[in-house]
Amino acid sequence: MKKNEISILGAGLIGSLLSIYLKKRGLDVTIYEKRADNRKTFYKEEGRSINMALSDRGWKALEKIGLKEKVMPLAIPMYGRKVHDEHGNTTFIPYGKDNQAIYSISRGNFNRILIDEAEKVGVKLEFSHKCEDVNLQKSSIKFLNGESKQEVESEVIIGSDGAYSSLRMAMQKQVRFNYLQEYISHGYKELTIPATANGEFAMDPNALHIWPRGKFMLIALPNPDKSFTCTLFLPFEGTKVCFDKINDKKDIEGVFRTYFDDAFQLMPNLVNEFQNNPTSALINIECYPWVQNKALLIGDASHAMVPFYGQGMNCGFEDVFILDSLIDKLGTNVWDLVFAKFQKIRKPDTDAICQLALENFVEMRDSVADPKFMLRKKIEAKLHDLYPKDWIPLYTMVTFSNMPYSEALAQGKLQEKIMDRIMSNPLITQNWDKLDYEDIIDQLDAAKAV
Amino acid sequence: MKKNEISILGAGLIGSLLSIYLKKRGLDVTIYEKRADNRKTFYKEEGRSINMALSDRGWKALEKIGLKEKVMPLAIPMYGRKVHDEHGNTTFIPYGKDNQAIYSISRGNFNRILIDEAEKVGVKLEFSHKCEDVNLQKSSIKFLNGESKQEVESEVIIGSDGAYSSLRMAMQKQVRFNYLQEYISHGYKELTIPATANGEFAMDPNALHIWPRGKFMLIALPNPDKSFTCTLFLPFEGTKVCFDKINDKKDIEGVFRTYFDDAFQLMPNLVNEFQNNPTSALINIECYPWVQNKALLIGDASHAMVPFYGQGMNCGFEDVFILDSLIDKLGTNVWDLVFAKFQKIRKPDTDAICQLALENFVEMRDSVADPKFMLRKKIEAKLHDLYPKDWIPLYTMVTFSNMPYSEALAQGKLQEKIMDRIMSNPLITQNWDKLDYEDIIDQLDAAKAV
Repeated sequence: MKKNEISILGAGLIGSLLSIYLKKRGLDVTIYEKRADNRKTFYKEEGRSINMALSDRGWKALEKIGLKEKVMPLAIPMYGRKVHDEHGNTTFIPYGKDNQAIYSISRGNFNRILIDEAEKVGVKLEFSHKCEDVNLQKSSIKFLNGESKQEVESEVIIGSDGAYSSLRMAMQKQVRFNYLQEYISHGYKELTIPATANGEFAMDPNALHIWPRGKFMLIALPNPDKSFTCTLFLPFEGTKVCFDKINDKKDIEGVFRTYFDDAFQLMPNLVNEFQNNPTSALINIECYPWVQNKALLIGDASHAMVPFYGQGMNCGFEDVFILDSLIDKLGTNVWDLVFAKFQKIRKPDTDAICQLALENFVEMRDSVADPKFMLRKKIEAKLHDLYPKDWIPLYTMVTFSNMPYSEALAQGKLQEKIMDRIMSNPLITQNWDKLDYEDIIDQLDAAKAV
Repeated sequence: MKKNEISILGAGLIGSLLSIYLKKRGLDVTIYEKRADNRKTFYKEEGRSINMALSDRGWKALEKIGLKEKVMPLAIPMYGRKVHDEHGNTTFIPYGKDNQAIYSISRGNFNRILIDEAEKVGVKLEFSHKCEDVNLQKSSIKFLNGESKQEVESEVIIGSDGAYSSLRMAMQKQVRFNYLQEYISHGYKELTIPATANGEFAMDPNALHIWPRGKFMLIALPNPDKSFTCTLFLPFEGTKVCFDKINDKKDIEGVFRTYFDDAFQLMPNLVNEFQNNPTSALINIECYPWVQNKALLIGDASHAMVPFYGQGMNCGFEDVFILDSLIDKLGTNVWDLVFAKFQKIRKPDTDAICQLALENFVEMRDSVADPKFMLRKKIEAKLHDLYPKDWIPLYTMVTFSNMPYSEALAQGKLQEKIMDRIMSNPLITQNWDKLDYEDIIDQLDAAKAV
């Protein structure tokens, strides 16, 4: 039987990046990918989202391995949310300070660059290899490659094979494996706002556009070809506006004219796209342990999250960064120890970001439409300006820092309570500028001390 | 391809009972069971618990199909808990009123009776048929029978194939299937108190014996052969007394002498059993939907629970009873409708009993050792005596009634709050007899009205 040093399952974003990290250490690394070698169109076969939002944690992992410069030209900075109301009026809510942005990047191009780079540094790539079964005791994997079957032993197996991970499926049958998969009640559909007739962006490209409508929403992210990828999030069923009740041209146009008219005017292919693009579901996955014998789960395979904090890929990249830091410290002769430490350190943080991602859906589709929400952001921004180390808005901790997600969540909850109290003042709209900001910081310090 | 009307996966307690119900309606019913036809020793292959506690919901389902008389001789009534302290002193806490009991019954004999009965009424039994895969769209099942493979189509597939259900595994790969499997931190090991030298029970047979020790416990249930099956529940790891830290004869005897000395004196084979019997894990499973196309999950396959309320089997039998009532109402031509209604009605109740089972572990291993707990039970018993319809202790609602579990849980929580308040009175031990019981009922009515 063939024997590998390191077998990675899945040549997606996380698996590709991880392979580069490990190969650069001089390890023997093979990636097995079930799809054929159509690197740029991987995502199309999966019905997965086309755009990602790359932020600090992701950049940091790219930078350590020298890939930041290569990726930057593909990425379009978005400095804040542009909120569209029913009448087409927009309000801009910055994500952070002036130069802070998240970056729209298309999954296809990004994945291709990473696979090309993996190939360049000497990672072995085996496409069209479908993992049929993993034997955790023997540390061996059975693959189906076309009609032929193959079994491969490995010193180490790492499953970066996503939300529907084969490795995790094998682990799930082991005793004492805790596992949760839950779908939210909403699904999504991707649509397009193409470039204008004269080849320009039809809206401001340096923002993430949101049409928040309470129980549902539309968002749009810019692409380098001057189009926007829009994603419509609706309940599958049960309410007035839901996928179940939108069937024909009349329904589609009715909903868009009523709720998203300014976007509708920019979507010449709406009906066609709506009818032909799939409606996809949104899953949250948590499990533990991530390690069985010599096999480790990483990225979405161990913690797939809903997309509402834009952290799925960033969190997966941070997984790679942290795993690599542990190898730095402990070496490549003690995988047991490295994997054990990795899961122990990392699990509370991935739990935290999964939770934050679920919670942020309500903020995106509902709260951002509330003037009080904007005021709240303004007060928090001012607090952050005055006391940059003491008060860091939750979004900033998650998106523009490398603070452990669990700490961000904990501090975020303390700040939320204080802000709730401040916002409950009926005169806050008039008085917000005259708040005793120092006292607010004292309240936070007191809350932290408990 | 062979085509069945109804295929049931699993010839365990639930599958066997269900098959009898359906066959008696004149339906064509086939059970597929992965184990060979060693009916009486099924449980041994699985490392599953030997004793069950049969209570009202279970009896009701047996009675409707005329099996109560047949099962009764196998069952030993237990009228309450006999709590053993560290010094061997015991206290009896009745489960309900005088004649109310739960019944100890051994899984092996019980399962054999049900399978025999299924065979008698004409259910087709296919043993040694391992379900390899279920195609939910085609409603077909692939079996492995020894070396030979077989595929069977069915109008209806019902998975009563337990906590590690093959049908559920197929459903789990479908989009929008929500699934949770969680192991608790404790495991268990089965041990024996044999009959005495002169062939008698070594302890009172009409009680469930408990040695509650805070974070861990021992229990014992009587068997018809005058032995007791003991189950030791310990944390797997991490604390002073846990499976991880008990390795040799000295450790085993040390723990038993220290914490369970009166039981230890009755366990001549302790060390041998401890070392040879497996340490098993305890799982809680929740999922939804239970129906995909023409396939339905039932019993542990859809809601495996920890054993601490003694309701796993009873709940599964009640599943069968309720499914049958729906068929009574709707007929056998509308399985879609029957299954859809079944899962909708039943899911809140199985969620409730899963939760209660998890919560009751703390009561069994810890609270029952507290004199305040016994007083609380006494006050509740008196309330129930005085106002039998208004105040029904939670244990009674769950065990000695057919009230939906979710209602029992809800009313139980209201009663718990009121009892917490009553018990917080520092003089309660002296004054409990002089409480204003009518006022307590008024409080409950007020709480219900909210």
